[in-house]
Amino acid sequence: MKPTIRDVAKMAGVSISTVSRVMNAPDTVVESKRSRVIEAIEELKYQPNAFARGLIYRKSFTLGLLIPDIENLYFAGVIRGMQDACIKLGYSLMICNTDRDKERTLSYMDTFHEKQVDGVVFASDILHPEYYEKLIGCRIPFVLVSSHSDEYEVASVEVDDEQAAYDAVKFLIELGHQEIGMIGFNHDNSVSGPPRMAGFVRALSESGLERNIGKIKYANHRFEHAYQATHELFTEYPELTAVFCVADEFAMGTISYLKDRNILVPGQVSVIGFDNLRMSGMFIPKLTTIAQPIYQLGYRAAEKLHELLTTGKVAVMKEKMEHKLIVRESSREK
Amino acid sequence: MKPTIRDVAKMAGVSISTVSRVMNAPDTVVESKRSRVIEAIEELKYQPNAFARGLIYRKSFTLGLLIPDIENLYFAGVIRGMQDACIKLGYSLMICNTDRDKERTLSYMDTFHEKQVDGVVFASDILHPEYYEKLIGCRIPFVLVSSHSDEYEVASVEVDDEQAAYDAVKFLIELGHQEIGMIGFNHDNSVSGPPRMAGFVRALSESGLERNIGKIKYANHRFEHAYQATHELFTEYPELTAVFCVADEFAMGTISYLKDRNILVPGQVSVIGFDNLRMSGMFIPKLTTIAQPIYQLGYRAAEKLHELLTTGKVAVMKEKMEHKLIVRESSREK
Repeated sequence: MKPTIRDVAKMAGVSISTVSRVMNAPDTVVESKRSRVIEAIEELKYQPNAFARGLIYRKSFTLGLLIPDIENLYFAGVIRGMQDACIKLGYSLMICNTDRDKERTLSYMDTFHEKQVDGVVFASDILHPEYYEKLIGCRIPFVLVSSHSDEYEVASVEVDDEQAAYDAVKFLIELGHQEIGMIGFNHDNSVSGPPRMAGFVRALSESGLERNIGKIKYANHRFEHAYQATHELFTEYPELTAVFCVADEFAMGTISYLKDRNILVPGQVSVIGFDNLRMSGMFIPKLTTIAQPIYQLGYRAAEKLHELLTTGKVAVMKEKMEHKLIVRESSREK
Repeated sequence: MKPTIRDVAKMAGVSISTVSRVMNAPDTVVESKRSRVIEAIEELKYQPNAFARGLIYRKSFTLGLLIPDIENLYFAGVIRGMQDACIKLGYSLMICNTDRDKERTLSYMDTFHEKQVDGVVFASDILHPEYYEKLIGCRIPFVLVSSHSDEYEVASVEVDDEQAAYDAVKFLIELGHQEIGMIGFNHDNSVSGPPRMAGFVRALSESGLERNIGKIKYANHRFEHAYQATHELFTEYPELTAVFCVADEFAMGTISYLKDRNILVPGQVSVIGFDNLRMSGMFIPKLTTIAQPIYQLGYRAAEKLHELLTTGKVAVMKEKMEHKLIVRESSREK
């Protein structure tokens, strides 16, 4: 038979209310009694729920992850890295998909609070004041991955989006391309959208190609949006010989559009992506892209959260990880 | 200040130990006292953790989902469907990624138990006796999605894998193909592997094409494994003019291999996939495939679990959902 709180009280030689106090307000119980109750809980393997464990160790050994879009392959990589770190560090990982819906995001924060997760990793979305207030109010330690906050002192890990975009466009320019367009992020409050556009603008400006700066169309998250945006881009600017796409999925949509219009990639138009999704090496043609260390970002985020949970602080608040240009088949010299 | 258990006891006019008993063993408290405690908990918005809510309503309004591979696009679709159903039905959804690791799967079941999820959806993997015993032992109601159990009476929802594979191969035969190979699932204890192979064999046998039955190579989960398996398949059987792949990701790996060998798809070889991942319409060429109602499978699984949780049973134990042939660009008449 499963042990009850009564059995715990009996074994510890205290009243049920003392056991209850140990569980609900441990600071109000003297250390000697508290220890006996904890010993009894352990001895009897008393486990009404996550609760007891959390009170004994003051931890639930569970981390929460809030991601904005489970169908985006980018996050699958982040999750894998974070999970491997969680296994190494002894945590379970619970993932919730917010769809960038504010109400749902706040509701999942409540859920994490109720489930007593030790900490939360918040991925990619902007840290709205409501989110910050909620997490602080719930006293849930948290870190950001593939995001950062300018307003708040929050630990984060991401790549240098501006520099990475600059490197992508610089690469196209060095291949001899002079007519370069861009497919950018459309969604509101995108964290990585503005710096990636800034990198595009800086690379063009440095090379006297300012005439291209306005040649941008925007897409939402999916390749089909990028397909449509590419249609608009090439209808307006048929002179383009290269396109910088701010995501590999966009690059696939762009190439798919060009293929349907019998425009050769890379024969007539070079396309460079961003992310280095695991699919990017399988696409036809294989994508030239800016690799984010996706797995490592997830891994590092979990380590950073663990650092915060165990020491109360992190050594590096705004950590940047290295990106890398990967040249495959979708780009060619002009 | 946050209310404590003491405040609840005071307001309800009972002892702390009574409040504690209401929370830990509610059946031992007479109804009148129990109601007063619950009223006080509600009045004070007392919420030490998920616990109180769970005890008041006897529910945590959280469902758990165990998936074997977060990087597989198939599960992203299942998750989306399941989440939309959860939102409609008033549940939070917590996802854990098992990597088909037995120890980790069992550990996540413990986590779900501790976090008091109301029920669990178990996806795609085989229901090992240890899993069954664990879930039954924890008294967690559960249903299977994209899986089923022959040994146990467990509710499940999936497609008819045998018939779907049969339809795929029959389609290739009707296009005039006589030399047909297959890229199958390699992983141990695959639930859908054997029936998909059976469908392949049945379609061939019906058309007097038994000579193809052994022309199968196996791949693990990723396109690169299918790429390698296709190499082996065509090295051994260069006469093939069509390939049935048991997953869209495999079909992409197969096409990628053929492209690298300058074998035209569908010009020289037709390829048909399985799943209808959202990527299958973006690939070049766009994939002909057997569409699973991926989103609906996830949606239906959550509804089925809800049915089980609220009524204690399900109307249809082993539910099959409709699959559909989708003809795109990767197949052609022989």
